[in-house]
Formats: sequence, C-alpha cells, structure tokens
Amino acid sequence: MSCLNSSPKTRAESRSYPLDTVDFFTALAPDKLKKLHEEGRTTSYTKGQILFTQDDPAEWFYMIESGWVKLFRETLDGNEVILDVMPHGFLFGEISMFEKGTHPYGAEIVENATLTSYPISLLKEYIEAQPELALALLQHISNKNNLKDREIEHRTIMKAPQRIGCFLLRLCKVKQPTPIILHLPYDKTLIASRLGMQPETFSRALSRLQEDTGIKVKGATVEITDLSSLITYTCTACSNVFPCDE
Amino acid sequence: MSCLNSSPKTRAESRSYPLDTVDFFTALAPDKLKKLHEEGRTTSYTKGQILFTQDDPAEWFYMIESGWVKLFRETLDGNEVILDVMPHGFLFGEISMFEKGTHPYGAEIVENATLTSYPISLLKEYIEAQPELALALLQHISNKNNLKDREIEHRTIMKAPQRIGCFLLRLCKVKQPTPIILHLPYDKTLIASRLGMQPETFSRALSRLQEDTGIKVKGATVEITDLSSLITYTCTACSNVFPCDE
Repeated sequence: MSCLNSSPKTRAESRSYPLDTVDFFTALAPDKLKKLHEEGRTTSYTKGQILFTQDDPAEWFYMIESGWVKLFRETLDGNEVILDVMPHGFLFGEISMFEKGTHPYGAEIVENATLTSYPISLLKEYIEAQPELALALLQHISNKNNLKDREIEHRTIMKAPQRIGCFLLRLCKVKQPTPIILHLPYDKTLIASRLGMQPETFSRALSRLQEDTGIKVKGATVEITDLSSLITYTCTACSNVFPCDE
Repeated sequence: MSCLNSSPKTRAESRSYPLDTVDFFTALAPDKLKKLHEEGRTTSYTKGQILFTQDDPAEWFYMIESGWVKLFRETLDGNEVILDVMPHGFLFGEISMFEKGTHPYGAEIVENATLTSYPISLLKEYIEAQPELALALLQHISNKNNLKDREIEHRTIMKAPQRIGCFLLRLCKVKQPTPIILHLPYDKTLIASRLGMQPETFSRALSRLQEDTGIKVKGATVEITDLSSLITYTCTACSNVFPCDE
C-alpha cells in the first residue's frame, strides 16, 4: 500500500509543495525564490471549476498542492481532448510565457483542489536575468517533450488494456510487496478520456486486462497480485523499461 | 501549384538551408554562427539508411537540405512508432543535448537526402555562454511542445479521413487557385505510419475522404477542386484554425 494516491492520507491534502521541489527552480538564487514564494497566492477550488480556458491571457503559473487538475483543448466542433490530468506536486502554466501571452490549453479542477499561483512576469524577468535558470528550464521543457513523445507512442501502438495497465503501473512506482491495493485517483470516465478512449472501450479493455493479467477491479479499488505479469503484459508494448523515469 | 513539395523543383534539392533560417539561431552572434557553419559537414544519404538509433550517443544535430527523414522509436516487442517525418529546412537532434547525451529517438532516411550535421557540443557551449540564445531555444522547444500537444489531440479525436485531410492541407499552406494538384511527398505506407494508422485503415479512410470532400487521388497525385470543403471537413475536428501557424 505504498503507492502514490493509494489512500486519502498519502494525497497530502495539507502539505505544501514549494517551487524548489521542481528541478528547475533549484537553479534560482535563494532571494529570488523567496520573492517568488512571497508572491504566491494559495486558493481552494471545487471540482468542476474552470481555472482558465484555451487562449486566455497567461499571467500566472500554478503548483498543485492537493487535488487533481486536468488540462484540455477544445476542437472547433466542441469536442474536448484531455492532454493531462495531474496530482499534487505538479506545475502547469509555466511554459505559457512562450505562447504569445496566452495559455495553449484550458485547466479544470477535477477533484477538489488547492493551488498556489505565481506571477509568470516575475519568472520571466528572472529567466531573462539568469542564464542558468534558462538552461534549467530548457531541461525541464525537454523532459516534457519526451513525455509527450511517449504519449503519442502509446496512443498509436498500445492496445487499450495495455494503456490502462500503464496507467495503473504509474501509480506504483516503487518496489512493493504484493498484493498491491490501489484506489483509482479519479473517476473512470475521466480516466478513459485521459487515455483517449470512449467509456465503452475503457470498460471492455478493463475487463480484458483483468482476464489477461489477473488483476481485480471492484469499484475504484484495484488489487494486483502478480505485478510482474502486469509489467510484462504492458511494458513490452512501450519503448521504456519499467519503472519509468517519471 | 504553389504547394510545398508540389513538384520536384520546389523541393529545392540543391538549395542549402543555413542555420539562421531557423528562428532560434538568429539570436546567435554572427561570429559564432559562422564558426558553427564552418563546423558543418554535408553528406548525402540514400533511402533506408539509419542515421542513428534510439539511445545512441548524441554528438551532432542535423539540418535537412533535401529529402525526407523520419524520427522513430521502437517498443520492446519490436514495433516501430513514427514520431515525425520531416522535409528540407527542418532541424532535428538539437534538443538531444538535454537527454543525458543520447538521442531519444532513431532517425532514418526515407527519401534520398542531403543533411548537414553540426556538433552539439559547440551549440551547448554557446547556449551556456549566451542567455539570449537559451531564451530563443526555450521558445523553439516550447513551439515543438505545442505541436506535440496537437499531435496527441489529432490521434485522439480526429477520424482517420480527417487526419489524412489535415496531412494534405499542411502541404498547401498558402492561398492558391483551385484546382490544386499535390504530389504525395513519400509513399502511402509511410504516410499511414506517420499518421498512426494501419495501411488498410489508411486505404479505407482515403476512399472515404474522396467521397466526402470530392478530392481525387490517383497514385501519388491528389487533385483538390474544393479547398473550403476539405478545410471544413477536416479543421472543425481540430482546436486550430486553418491555416495552421506551422
């Protein structure tokens, strides 16, 4: 039971995530980091609230202190595409400073959340003044780029049950004794969308995954008795080796 | 007939693409740009040659002078995923300096090509010394990030005929009189892979696209008589408006 988000307690509702828990802020001089923290505003949001929509002016970037946030885009004919669903400790909006001053996606609260927002203008000022930070940010964005390549890879080549297997394995990053009990971090319809599937595809794929790997799913609870079977089933269809480096 | 790659002539087989045709190199001091050009090595390759594979040491980045290059990854069970297929004027490998010294993908020549390679170490040295260049590179990588988000969006939400429509529209970026005659830039099997489709899906989708939009495809030649119909059919399923900004 040492999985990420395996119980409400480990969701660290009350813990704060200072910026220097994110790699690239460790390159920032202490007085500047302090100033940025002083400018931070912590706010609570309820499920369903829209933080901003695509093409809104980008003035703030956000650290998720608790809860879950989804990033999405809308097509002209009104369909929604989910780009990411992120838990505490994740940052978003920080790259929008390179996007003509607007956010390239919308953000919505999908589980009650607390976020701290920081002014992008201050971050931009620091980056312009301190080249090491620009290099650290390059590394950070380059990592994001890589994750997107993997996402494209998965949506292209992985079968639906394998994509769900991958989602579950990412909730268990460390070695742990079996049986592993996971609690799905948000509802199945949203997980389906996050994985780029229709709800009925997700439902069929989840049944198939249980048949093929012996995992058991009951409501939002998942029991994994044979982790190596799940890894073999899932990760052979990926260019990465388990455990992933993110 | 003013489309990109619409005829062999416009493929500019003999033209060279100096680095400053790419936005972020315009931030480089002239003497440094000159030095980088002096270090460049131009080589011809034939279709099918592998330039490097995933996880190979990254010592060079490449400018495509002519031909086509595909970037790909391989899954553990041996399937290939195509991340991109790029023509002349495109750069690749330049972000690998942030990838622990290795390329996060392989590169293969898919149509006879001429490439100029430049040492990554020199670029890295310049970036460390000149913060404006780091900022310009941030902008460049951020744009790539955005394109990947759109790729994820398309692979998730667009129907197969629409994805082919999008591929064709990207070959016609400027306003032009109809009928527009395009020549497919590389073979259909590769286009199918580039769009993340099985060949039989591609074939069915291409027939459907012709029925739905009135375009005509014969071998590698495409005739578009009603551009606005193709745009409406395709771009309503996207979060961007035609013409795209890349």
